[in-house]
Amino acid sequence: MASEKVSTKIGMAPGSLVYVGEEGAADICVSIIQYSRDRYTETTDADLEACRQAISEDSVTWINITGVHDPDLIGRLGQMFDLHPLVLEDMLNTEGRPKLDDYDTYLFAILKMIDYDPGQNRLDHEQVSLVVRPGLVISLQEKPGDVFDPVRERIRKGKGRIRKLGADYLAYALMDMIVDQYFLAMEQIGEQIEDLQDEVIEDPGEEIVQTIHQSRSRIIFLKKAVWPVREIIHNLLRDDTDLISDDVRVYLRDVYDHAIHVSDTVESHRDILSGVLDIYLTTVSNRMNEVMKVLTVIATIFIPLTFIAGVYGMNFDYMPELSRPWAYPALWAVFLGIFAGLLVWFKRRKWL
Amino acid sequence: MASEKVSTKIGMAPGSLVYVGEEGAADICVSIIQYSRDRYTETTDADLEACRQAISEDSVTWINITGVHDPDLIGRLGQMFDLHPLVLEDMLNTEGRPKLDDYDTYLFAILKMIDYDPGQNRLDHEQVSLVVRPGLVISLQEKPGDVFDPVRERIRKGKGRIRKLGADYLAYALMDMIVDQYFLAMEQIGEQIEDLQDEVIEDPGEEIVQTIHQSRSRIIFLKKAVWPVREIIHNLLRDDTDLISDDVRVYLRDVYDHAIHVSDTVESHRDILSGVLDIYLTTVSNRMNEVMKVLTVIATIFIPLTFIAGVYGMNFDYMPELSRPWAYPALWAVFLGIFAGLLVWFKRRKWL
Amino acid sequence: MASEKVSTKIGMAPGSLVYVGEEGAADICVSIIQYSRDRYTETTDADLEACRQAISEDSVTWINITGVHDPDLIGRLGQMFDLHPLVLEDMLNTEGRPKLDDYDTYLFAILKMIDYDPGQNRLDHEQVSLVVRPGLVISLQEKPGDVFDPVRERIRKGKGRIRKLGADYLAYALMDMIVDQYFLAMEQIGEQIEDLQDEVIEDPGEEIVQTIHQSRSRIIFLKKAVWPVREIIHNLLRDDTDLISDDVRVYLRDVYDHAIHVSDTVESHRDILSGVLDIYLTTVSNRMNEVMKVLTVIATIFIPLTFIAGVYGMNFDYMPELSRPWAYPALWAVFLGIFAGLLVWFKRRKWL
Amino acid sequence: MASEKVSTKIGMAPGSLVYVGEEGAADICVSIIQYSRDRYTETTDADLEACRQAISEDSVTWINITGVHDPDLIGRLGQMFDLHPLVLEDMLNTEGRPKLDDYDTYLFAILKMIDYDPGQNRLDHEQVSLVVRPGLVISLQEKPGDVFDPVRERIRKGKGRIRKLGADYLAYALMDMIVDQYFLAMEQIGEQIEDLQDEVIEDPGEEIVQTIHQSRSRIIFLKKAVWPVREIIHNLLRDDTDLISDDVRVYLRDVYDHAIHVSDTVESHRDILSGVLDIYLTTVSNRMNEVMKVLTVIATIFIPLTFIAGVYGMNFDYMPELSRPWAYPALWAVFLGIFAGLLVWFKRRKWL
Amino acid sequence: MASEKVSTKIGMAPGSLVYVGEEGAADICVSIIQYSRDRYTETTDADLEACRQAISEDSVTWINITGVHDPDLIGRLGQMFDLHPLVLEDMLNTEGRPKLDDYDTYLFAILKMIDYDPGQNRLDHEQVSLVVRPGLVISLQEKPGDVFDPVRERIRKGKGRIRKLGADYLAYALMDMIVDQYFLAMEQIGEQIEDLQDEVIEDPGEEIVQTIHQSRSRIIFLKKAVWPVREIIHNLLRDDTDLISDDVRVYLRDVYDHAIHVSDTVESHRDILSGVLDIYLTTVSNRMNEVMKVLTVIATIFIPLTFIAGVYGMNFDYMPELSRPWAYPALWAVFLGIFAGLLVWFKRRKWL
Repeated sequence: MASEKVSTKIGMAPGSLVYVGEEGAADICVSIIQYSRDRYTETTDADLEACRQAISEDSVTWINITGVHDPDLIGRLGQMFDLHPLVLEDMLNTEGRPKLDDYDTYLFAILKMIDYDPGQNRLDHEQVSLVVRPGLVISLQEKPGDVFDPVRERIRKGKGRIRKLGADYLAYALMDMIVDQYFLAMEQIGEQIEDLQDEVIEDPGEEIVQTIHQSRSRIIFLKKAVWPVREIIHNLLRDDTDLISDDVRVYLRDVYDHAIHVSDTVESHRDILSGVLDIYLTTVSNRMNEVMKVLTVIATIFIPLTFIAGVYGMNFDYMPELSRPWAYPALWAVFLGIFAGLLVWFKRRKWL
Repeated sequence: MASEKVSTKIGMAPGSLVYVGEEGAADICVSIIQYSRDRYTETTDADLEACRQAISEDSVTWINITGVHDPDLIGRLGQMFDLHPLVLEDMLNTEGRPKLDDYDTYLFAILKMIDYDPGQNRLDHEQVSLVVRPGLVISLQEKPGDVFDPVRERIRKGKGRIRKLGADYLAYALMDMIVDQYFLAMEQIGEQIEDLQDEVIEDPGEEIVQTIHQSRSRIIFLKKAVWPVREIIHNLLRDDTDLISDDVRVYLRDVYDHAIHVSDTVESHRDILSGVLDIYLTTVSNRMNEVMKVLTVIATIFIPLTFIAGVYGMNFDYMPELSRPWAYPALWAVFLGIFAGLLVWFKRRKWL
Repeated sequence: MASEKVSTKIGMAPGSLVYVGEEGAADICVSIIQYSRDRYTETTDADLEACRQAISEDSVTWINITGVHDPDLIGRLGQMFDLHPLVLEDMLNTEGRPKLDDYDTYLFAILKMIDYDPGQNRLDHEQVSLVVRPGLVISLQEKPGDVFDPVRERIRKGKGRIRKLGADYLAYALMDMIVDQYFLAMEQIGEQIEDLQDEVIEDPGEEIVQTIHQSRSRIIFLKKAVWPVREIIHNLLRDDTDLISDDVRVYLRDVYDHAIHVSDTVESHRDILSGVLDIYLTTVSNRMNEVMKVLTVIATIFIPLTFIAGVYGMNFDYMPELSRPWAYPALWAVFLGIFAGLLVWFKRRKWL
Repeated sequence: MASEKVSTKIGMAPGSLVYVGEEGAADICVSIIQYSRDRYTETTDADLEACRQAISEDSVTWINITGVHDPDLIGRLGQMFDLHPLVLEDMLNTEGRPKLDDYDTYLFAILKMIDYDPGQNRLDHEQVSLVVRPGLVISLQEKPGDVFDPVRERIRKGKGRIRKLGADYLAYALMDMIVDQYFLAMEQIGEQIEDLQDEVIEDPGEEIVQTIHQSRSRIIFLKKAVWPVREIIHNLLRDDTDLISDDVRVYLRDVYDHAIHVSDTVESHRDILSGVLDIYLTTVSNRMNEVMKVLTVIATIFIPLTFIAGVYGMNFDYMPELSRPWAYPALWAVFLGIFAGLLVWFKRRKWL
Repeated sequence: MASEKVSTKIGMAPGSLVYVGEEGAADICVSIIQYSRDRYTETTDADLEACRQAISEDSVTWINITGVHDPDLIGRLGQMFDLHPLVLEDMLNTEGRPKLDDYDTYLFAILKMIDYDPGQNRLDHEQVSLVVRPGLVISLQEKPGDVFDPVRERIRKGKGRIRKLGADYLAYALMDMIVDQYFLAMEQIGEQIEDLQDEVIEDPGEEIVQTIHQSRSRIIFLKKAVWPVREIIHNLLRDDTDLISDDVRVYLRDVYDHAIHVSDTVESHRDILSGVLDIYLTTVSNRMNEVMKVLTVIATIFIPLTFIAGVYGMNFDYMPELSRPWAYPALWAVFLGIFAGLLVWFKRRKWL
């Protein structure tokens, strides 16, 4: 977490454009896609100014910016599209909380995209900002990635409804991609938990507590990303902003259901995890019990025997038993008697 | 859980018809029942097209489809009855969350049917989708099963209100069947918990923790199915959709009460379960205490005695006690004195 | 719990009249009380038909039925008073959840009456159904009992407001009786918890965990009965049904306060119980600590001493210490020195 | 708690005037204060009847009754001021829950006053009932006490706003006194918790669990008194009863803030307490670990040595080592070697 | 905490001006800043009376008072600006809860500023009161500090929007500063928790429980400050007071998001902390297990061997084994056999 950087901003005027996030972020890359029902143009490394003129009412323009660490670019973007200073500030502050603000003429949304890297077994997140205006969607990503590629592909091929509907549908499609990523992360956590359930029953080692803790941290991580998305879409559905058409509302309701599904599952994963921890803790207790029983059985049997042997190892001049010829075999009988008696007693107590 | 499959859909356009669920599902079977107050026809392996014409205002048509793994069939169904692409997508995605969507001219509901298989001691679930339009109910099940048979029987025999009321009542009857299955699962869990309560008091073994965990997982499982049903019916009762008549609302209220009853009971089962775990954990602690006491009593008594015996086993030339004739019996007196004294002390401490 | 029976009903048409509850219930007994401000008649083992004619606007008729296992009687009752089939079904299903349904011309309530049997130390519950219409209250109890006797007495003697107000006041009076029973049960649990608090501090035995669990189960039991009653009365107070007059609403508010009081107290009892369990668990831990300390002190002192004694019990030819006359007393000094030193060390560590 | 008495009332008509509370309560004492902006009279042991005539629109009359165990007096009070029977019943039942009822022409409130007795280290509560009508406040206390004295003093001296504002302000002033008592109790609990935090870190004894439990019980106790007060004032602020003027509403908002403050603090005290218990429990575990380590270190070192000494104490005829002159010193070298080796091993494992 | 002082106020009339807080607070310092779009004056140790005349509609006056322990000054302030007595009381009572009161012509807010002192590793809080009127902001701090300096700097330099907007924007800027401090505290807690996570996995010492407890207390502390701020701003945004312009509302929404972000993060920190405690507790259990295993292995191996050696140390006259020349080596073979056998057994049980 690079959240220390947030503190560097304290004291600055609201709307101060300071990048808050990991250093050494990748190159900034601006790509513009413009399409209408029967037209489609795509520009990479585009010139923002040129593009502005191309924006028209009867087509949808999607400006995708990868890399948000250049306050300058964001500043120009803001001027060009007349965005509120706080919007620009939030775009640069990649440690923000998912939210949706309705600025009458446009909507501004912050979302968290979950990147699960199976190679490094790491769950990371990336901030995605969306500005939605009639005919225009601006999306900002922290890092390059191909999460939105399927959407591009659908636009290119003119498949599905995407070329027929407006910017609100495009925004929905992007949000849908992001929420679908949560399913991926959730599935990964779900599998880890199922492995944990199997492992804890078979032969749990000490490191299982750390794996449980890791799963739990991931669940908390995922929950922090998903929960606000629920609110966001719920507010979008309830509000009557003109920026979202009724057709698209139906689709948003679907994303909403997905977000609820993820957070429900996350909640039940959590419950099951705490059950796994309970099993492990009782296993530890039971093992200790096992160890103690072995010690107790051995000690309880041999300590009295050793005492008796010690008695007849004493050097008193007058110990009449010592000179009896039957005494030694008799003592062995006593030894074996005690031994057998204690064994039976332990058997009865179910310690053996 | 076959939830891994959900990830295969990521990136597809919303409304893409891809089956998400277990492979090798049974054959698809379409059965159609049409009835009015005094007419009744039933067709198995029916032809969808033919049936469409038969749909009329003054009778109820129930199309039941078993097996949802054929995107083609679902696609034709959607075209025929003009269903929203998202409805079709949800029908195929059997890992969805229970929900109810109101598409003005029809209602679409997803429910989870709980199948308890006592032979395998397994709790499984199956998705049921319902489309309700005036005069028409379409129900989709994942697997063949006879849960809806009693409803069919009631229609055939013309018993009860079912032949007199419309499609909304039929939809209610199906939902009622599904919620009744929850009672069955809940009773099964309830019995398992009562057994656990008895077992934990008598002589709990280590495996009880796993049984507790299993019950808990089932409760979580059941809760995930029931909870959304509460919401669904609550929304149905609150909304003023024309698709549900007032007569049927009364019955829905009854299903609502049942759903609340199940989720209440599930909640209290859960509370009791955590109490059972507490008892088990204290039992484990108390047993360890028992073991430690036995060890401590034996060791505390014999270790000092052994020391004394050891002392008189030493080979010093000058040990005056050794030559006294009364020394040996006197030492036995000491041994017995210490033994008795410690016994009394332990008795007083209630360790024996 | 006889809840297994619920499953026997699955698949039947809603409103099917099947008795769900314990077998061998007592005889059915119908008693009818009719009263107005200055008139009063009471009939036991009454004839329902005859009684129907006696119902008039200016008097209150109270039909009390004890024993609900006769679907036939309930069926006739339903026909006579034009009750909804679901009402009849709920009357017979004694495993239902407390609820209140407003059927416009009458109210139907299900409540749970708590029977505390101090002889058997058992908390049981019984379902009470109430139908309230202008001028008529029908109450159904599972078992004979004298809980409602005080109300009868008040009607007989014409004491209080009961003879002056309508059927709604009578219904209130019956609900008040039921909620008062919760206080009794709550007091009993409260006393048990106070005993537990005393016991756990003095000398808790192992069986205390089971008593804690029993109290907890009772609390859950009571909560399941009380919680819905809160909702029921809250809804009654909020709705503007004509069936409840404003005069009676004031009294219902009072019952509502009582129900909240019970559920609040139940909640805090629960909190205290979990505190009692915490105390017990630490007591168990501390006792184990005690046991371990005794063992450790004894072993730590005598094991080294025994080793030394063992050394001088060895039979080497050349052990110069053995022939020194001062060696034996000197060794005793060493023994006592080690003994005293360890005692001091243990004292300092506060183990003694 | 004298809550057993509540059960004695079961079965009585609502509004039956029966005193529920501790026996042997103090003498009943009625004091009346009448004041307006420039007039002030005070009567102790007043005659209720006489006083009634003195009530006028342009002055405020405050009737304070200490001791509520005389149903007769309460009955006359009710008749005189036309109070609802349930109000009278609630006045006598000192085990009620705090609440506020709006009877159109007057407000009736029940509050719990917390008495902290530092001498006995006891937290007790006392019920205070308030009836507020234009120009009249009736307050009932269970026990004599001087909590309301500051209010009296302010009236006498004509200090502050109290003589200028109406009966609603007086009622506010009394409620403010009661809520201020909660602060006192909360501070006392806060100090106890701070002591506990210090103690648990330094050298916690076994009795600390009981102190934690006591603090927790007090928190639950306080919460039960405060929580309903929040609701009460919240309802007062939200409702638009004419009995509370806008001027006084501002003050009530202040009391509301105080009540929230107390309940917030109570909540965080509770959180901290459970942290204290966690520390104690780990301390107990760690101590046990300490004890076990000492035992293990001593036993692990000396048990093998004792075995070796035992071997050379055996009496076999043919044991060649015994006759070697260097054998005994060599064995001592072995003893010391094992001893030193194990010490090093334990040091490395950080057991020493 | 100096909260004991709150009790000294009990019994006083509401609005009594008594300072509640730490003694020996710093000197009181009044500074006044007046600015409009193109004018700017700053006065330190200003004369309140003089300043009042300078207040005009077309400029913003910011009166900042450091040190609130002079009831006299607060009293004069109240008279001068016609503040409600309760406002003055709350300004002096530095133990109040954050809140916002709308007095129609002005808003009054209490906030808690978190001071994190890294030198002393201490989290402290300070009360800040704000009065906001058109053209005027009065802020009161307990202690001198430079938290508001960035705002002053922005006013001086005329940077950003601050000189162009009204008093409401200034109030927002101050609240923003305070909420930004929460981020600082949260980051500090976050780092402590990350350290804890690392430490608990590597080699946790006993003191970790106290660090966990400390982090938890800080979280509770921070939560108590942040939570009410959420409510305050939420109310500000929902209410339609004229004192906040729509332009500033957008900024307040931003502060609101920050407050939610802090409280969300605090919540998840808490969750992670309890996971850290779980890991530590299992580590303690596992360590104890380790210790017990060492003891058990050593004792189980040597106790039987010692017994056998003891047997052949007995002094019976007739022990035929003693005179066999092969007996002693044979016994060694037995010793080694038992030793090896037990080692294998322990290996199989995975105790070694």
